[in-house]
Amino acid sequence: MTPAFEPFEKIALIGIGLIGSSIALNVRAHGLARHIAISSRSDGTLRRAEELGLGDSYHGDAAEAVRDADLVILCVPVGACGAVAEAIAPSLRAGAIVSDVGSVKASIVSQMQPHLPDHVHFVPAHPIAGTEQSGPDAGFAELFQNRWCILTPVQPVDEAAIARLRAFWEACGSTVEEMTAEHHDRVLAIVSHLPHLIAYNIVGTAYDMEEVTQSEVVKYSASGFRDFTRLASSDPTMWRDVFLNNRDATLEVLARFSEDLSVLQRAIRDGKGEQLFDTFTKTRAIRREIIEAGQETAKPNFGRNKPPKKWDDESAS
Amino acid sequence: MTPAFEPFEKIALIGIGLIGSSIALNVRAHGLARHIAISSRSDGTLRRAEELGLGDSYHGDAAEAVRDADLVILCVPVGACGAVAEAIAPSLRAGAIVSDVGSVKASIVSQMQPHLPDHVHFVPAHPIAGTEQSGPDAGFAELFQNRWCILTPVQPVDEAAIARLRAFWEACGSTVEEMTAEHHDRVLAIVSHLPHLIAYNIVGTAYDMEEVTQSEVVKYSASGFRDFTRLASSDPTMWRDVFLNNRDATLEVLARFSEDLSVLQRAIRDGKGEQLFDTFTKTRAIRREIIEAGQETAKPNFGRNKPPKKWDDESAS
Ligand SMILES: NC(=O)c1ccc[n+]([C@@H]2O[C@H](COP(=O)([O-])OP(=O)(O)OC[C@H]3O[C@@H](n4cnc5c(N)ncnc54)[C@H](OP(=O)(O)O)[C@@H]3O)[C@@H](O)[C@H]2O)c1
Ligand SMILES: NC(=O)c1ccc[n+]([C@@H]2O[C@H](COP(=O)([O-])OP(=O)(O)OC[C@H]3O[C@@H](n4cnc5c(N)ncnc54)[C@H](OP(=O)(O)O)[C@@H]3O)[C@@H](O)[C@H]2O)c1
Repeated sequence: MTPAFEPFEKIALIGIGLIGSSIALNVRAHGLARHIAISSRSDGTLRRAEELGLGDSYHGDAAEAVRDADLVILCVPVGACGAVAEAIAPSLRAGAIVSDVGSVKASIVSQMQPHLPDHVHFVPAHPIAGTEQSGPDAGFAELFQNRWCILTPVQPVDEAAIARLRAFWEACGSTVEEMTAEHHDRVLAIVSHLPHLIAYNIVGTAYDMEEVTQSEVVKYSASGFRDFTRLASSDPTMWRDVFLNNRDATLEVLARFSEDLSVLQRAIRDGKGEQLFDTFTKTRAIRREIIEAGQETAKPNFGRNKPPKKWDDESAS
Repeated sequence: MTPAFEPFEKIALIGIGLIGSSIALNVRAHGLARHIAISSRSDGTLRRAEELGLGDSYHGDAAEAVRDADLVILCVPVGACGAVAEAIAPSLRAGAIVSDVGSVKASIVSQMQPHLPDHVHFVPAHPIAGTEQSGPDAGFAELFQNRWCILTPVQPVDEAAIARLRAFWEACGSTVEEMTAEHHDRVLAIVSHLPHLIAYNIVGTAYDMEEVTQSEVVKYSASGFRDFTRLASSDPTMWRDVFLNNRDATLEVLARFSEDLSVLQRAIRDGKGEQLFDTFTKTRAIRREIIEAGQETAKPNFGRNKPPKKWDDESAS
């Protein structure tokens, strides 16, 4: 935590699922705001947030939650951000920072910006951290630690608001980067959106096989398949919205993926052992780099085996 | 461990990488054989196995290692099994059980069987357990625990030899199933070979992107991409041999995968939100089943985050 962080008066979290609740836990743990106002669409989620003690006030009406807040963060699916922005706009206090956590950025900007009044500072954000789970129970304070948070500032750029939001995310344990919304969407298309699409697809293919039973897929999944089921168990609403809102970049990386796959397919068909070997060799280095960057565990099988003694000394996540 | 396991006199392990060394550690830990003879192609690997104390005798010559052995297990890449079988055949003792651990089975049978004398019992096997690492240092005794081992008996079926090998793998902590080599190869094509191919491919695609730098891929990999890098860091020789030797089944599941992917691609292009939502929903159940079957950890992110307190009570791998 940045020691000198000057707390916000009031933070309003609109949406209190995995990301919203993880932010709330950070705000509480590090004293990042004096008051946490929470809003969620459904009564059930709002009540659950209250039971978990995530906030100081709870509001069915998002517009009520943002009143007097000097920091407002939308933590709802990408496709819902426009409607939420419209609903809260009249109640936003002058000088408030309005942000979000959406996994797509250009679409968020075009959805939200038209509704926001000139007297607020809009700074879109995306914490590159998450799990396959959702809802207020899924959150935990450590989620953002050693992860990146990308800000995609919009015109007119407000340096003070950006600095303030940057300090907020740093206080949550993240390192902050800035880039354009368009570049963000291309980067995330390859590092996140395509991987999820492929994972959903391969699990679907296995699901529909006739010659191999579901129970065989489950039994023998430790030979590779299970790795894909984690991403493929992520929230369908969130991911529907990601693909609908980052269509072009996703389709572009998907086209490249398919081209590359055709090349591999042909190499297998033609028995080109050397070509396969070369392809499988060049992909190894990148994992080592990811481990060295602190973004992955070095333990074999992601550390899922009952660990033998000799792994104790090895570097962990 | 099966308490009544009658140890083998002498086990010969031809190949002492991840799988061979993990077998050796089990044989030692559970007293499954009175003597462990180890052979490896290279001096370096053989010496390393000796330093690790994996066996009782070490042989550059595989034929020498198998002399007097009543259990011989080939733990070399699939493509090398024919040549090894040919080399050891004249030295095999009458009544010996000859087995392997290859990830493909029909090809192993057609490579090995022609060389083996009638006086041995050939029982092909495949432990469905592994990691992305290789070599004698990668082995650990717990590898096979709560995993499946598939036997693919060949004609003439020798029930006594099968029962003996089954008991051996059970003593290593595995549950044993029998099926035909052809069915094995179809099952593994979808649960293991296609997942590895897809993982190698997506990592390769990311590697070759021009608009997104390597360092961006590394930094933001926690958003999904990193999950694929584990499989894609597996041994290139092993995987080249798998695809060369399970070509037809792999190409068949790959064709289905590509068809399914085209459907998803079109849904994204046409903005078919409901269809995307439905696809992303049906894939969730299978993960729950895999976790319930004890083949996967229930912890979010495979347990790679610094665990918050509340995860302590939750079920682990
Ligand atoms: N999950 C990740 O790994 C991850 C990582 C980084 C960024 N993100 C982004 O973070 C955002 C939230 O994701 P999450 O994982 O926290 O989701 P979540 O756990 O499913 O929570 C979603 C929240 O949004 C509300 N909501 C859902 N649909 C809504 C709608 N149509 N209108 C208004 N509110 C709605 C939900 O309210 P009710 O429960 O009351 O219906 C809930 O409070 C998304 O934009 C996502 O792209 C996610
Ligand atoms: N890794 C897995 O996850 C996994 C899981 C289940 C089954 N399998 C199967 O288990 C077998 C071994 O895999 P592994 O992971 O243990 O491999 P590994 O760690 O790479 O060890 C391979 C062993 O085979 C030897 N070898 C390599 N090429 C050879 C050749 N052309 N002729 C003779 N010996 C050769 C190596 O000898 P030198 O080091 O002396 O050259 C080494 O002893 C493969 O058939 C694989 O399909 C692997």
